[in-house]
Order: sequence, then C-alpha cells, then structure tokens
Amino acid sequence: MSVTTELLQANERYAASFTKGDLPLPPARRVAILTCMDARMDPTRFLGLQEGDAHVIRNAGGRASDDALRSLAISHALLGTREFVVVHHTDCGMLTFRNEQLQRQLRRDLGADASGIDFLPFGDLEQSVRDDVATIRTSPLVPKDLPVRGFVYDVRTGRLREVA
Amino acid sequence: MSVTTELLQANERYAASFTKGDLPLPPARRVAILTCMDARMDPTRFLGLQEGDAHVIRNAGGRASDDALRSLAISHALLGTREFVVVHHTDCGMLTFRNEQLQRQLRRDLGADASGIDFLPFGDLEQSVRDDVATIRTSPLVPKDLPVRGFVYDVRTGRLREVA
Repeated sequence: MSVTTELLQANERYAASFTKGDLPLPPARRVAILTCMDARMDPTRFLGLQEGDAHVIRNAGGRASDDALRSLAISHALLGTREFVVVHHTDCGMLTFRNEQLQRQLRRDLGADASGIDFLPFGDLEQSVRDDVATIRTSPLVPKDLPVRGFVYDVRTGRLREVA
Repeated sequence: MSVTTELLQANERYAASFTKGDLPLPPARRVAILTCMDARMDPTRFLGLQEGDAHVIRNAGGRASDDALRSLAISHALLGTREFVVVHHTDCGMLTFRNEQLQRQLRRDLGADASGIDFLPFGDLEQSVRDDVATIRTSPLVPKDLPVRGFVYDVRTGRLREVA
C-alpha cells in the first residue's frame, strides 16, 4: 500500500471525530509562523497551537524566500496577523550541501538544468535566522512596526532559543 | 503578553516531556506534503503524522510555486521522499481576492509597489489542485515516475477528497 493511501485512512479516523468545523478563516491568535519543512519538527505541537490559531508557512530551511514573503503579506494584509515568528533548527539539511552540488546531482539524475536556481542553503544556522528576520523586517510588504522574532529549534531537545 | 511569548511558554512544556531527540533527518515515511498555511488545517493531525514522518511544505494556497518546487526537489533528491501529496481546502482565502485588489491595498496601506507580484489567488478550487499537481508532475526537478496526488480538504468536515 502506498503511504498516501495510509494517510487517507488516518484522515478517515480524524474526520470521524472532527469537531472544529465552524472555525473562522482569520487566525484566532493573529500570528504567522515561518519554519522549515523538516519532518522532525511539528510546529503546532512544539508551539502549543490548536486548529484555527495561526498561519504556518513552511519550506526547505524556513527561508524568507519571495514566496514566503507573498504568504506573509497575505497573512497580515488580508487575514490580520500581527506577529511573525521565524524558526530554523539544528541539524538542518540546508547546512549539508551547496548549490553547485545539488545542481550537478539534478543534472546527473534527471537531466535537469537547475543552474539558475538558488536552493537557499546556508553555512551558519544562527546567521540564517538573523538574515531571514532582517529580510522580513525590511520588506516593503510588511509594516515596519510588526514584531518579527527569530529562533533556533533544537531537534535533540525540542526547545526554542531566541537568536534575532 | 505577546502571543510569541505565550508560544515560548508552550514550547517549554513541550520540551519538558520531549522524547524524540534521536530521529534521523530523512523522513521515515518518505512522503512530502504541500498544503496551505491556513490556520484551520493541521496536516500532521489530519494525516496522522508523527514527528519524523514527512516533510510538510506550506504557503498561501498550498501552491506549487517556484519555492515549493525548490523544497520538493530538496525533499526528493537529498532526503529521499518518493511520494508527493498536494492539499488545498474549502473556504480558502485565495478564493477571496484578485492580484489587483491586494496590490492596491498594499500601496494604500504600506506605500508598497507590489505591481510585479503574482500572489497566486485562484477562482476554481479543484482546478487549482489539478494545476498544481500538473506543475509538479511536469517539473524537470521531479522524476517523471514519482506519484503526485491532489486533494481538497473540507474545513467543515476535516475530510480529504481526491481531485487529481
């Protein structure tokens, strides 16, 4: 059986006891989280969030990419969030490669020309958080007075540490 | 107290009983989920995922943006996922506006020139899933034989329905 089919079976169980069908669209706690796609991190659990509480934006690295800024702009301007939280994490895959390596691998394995793509890897974890917090704070799409705080999540302890 | 401060207190409680500090970096169930940032959706809960199981990529709409493709390429090529699942949802904010409206609002409220930004809204929910599944299936960064399935999540029932 495919994993997707297993997930659908789990969804049947979730839906069978679902009680949150009348939540409003805007996040109740007016906060948006930007974090990594990493499998070990479950932001709703490690931040104590319930369905309806917060926007959660995730990509490889938790980077403040143009697409993350698109999402944050929609989150604030259309849906009323007023605090942003950026969370990167220890042992991140983005610390393990450089653009040239992945570009070479994609050419070798798939025949793909990824030479124009920045995969946004980083060499310094704390600096990557500071950089992304700065990118958001200085974005013209985000109000100057909207609080943006940056953290490192330790995958060994489950604990956040503020770095920006 | 700021919401962020409340989240940090919740994180202290999570870390105090944390027992998953030795999970490997690659997702155990070798699947990546692409879904919306919407606050009402908790993909780990509605898909029955545990810490360590799956990559979760989220943005406004769950769109197959260039940044989502960046993340999916890293997920497959470097971390071994071999199924992708796309989930959009009913009552999505992306159904409620058009680029011109948001661009006008950002100019009015922030003085921002967002005229060059496609915020990726859509008018037809099922078609948006089909479009994004097709974008991923035809991306040169994704192997042709990697299964990509597309679903609509109903925020009133918590249930997934396959559409692509």
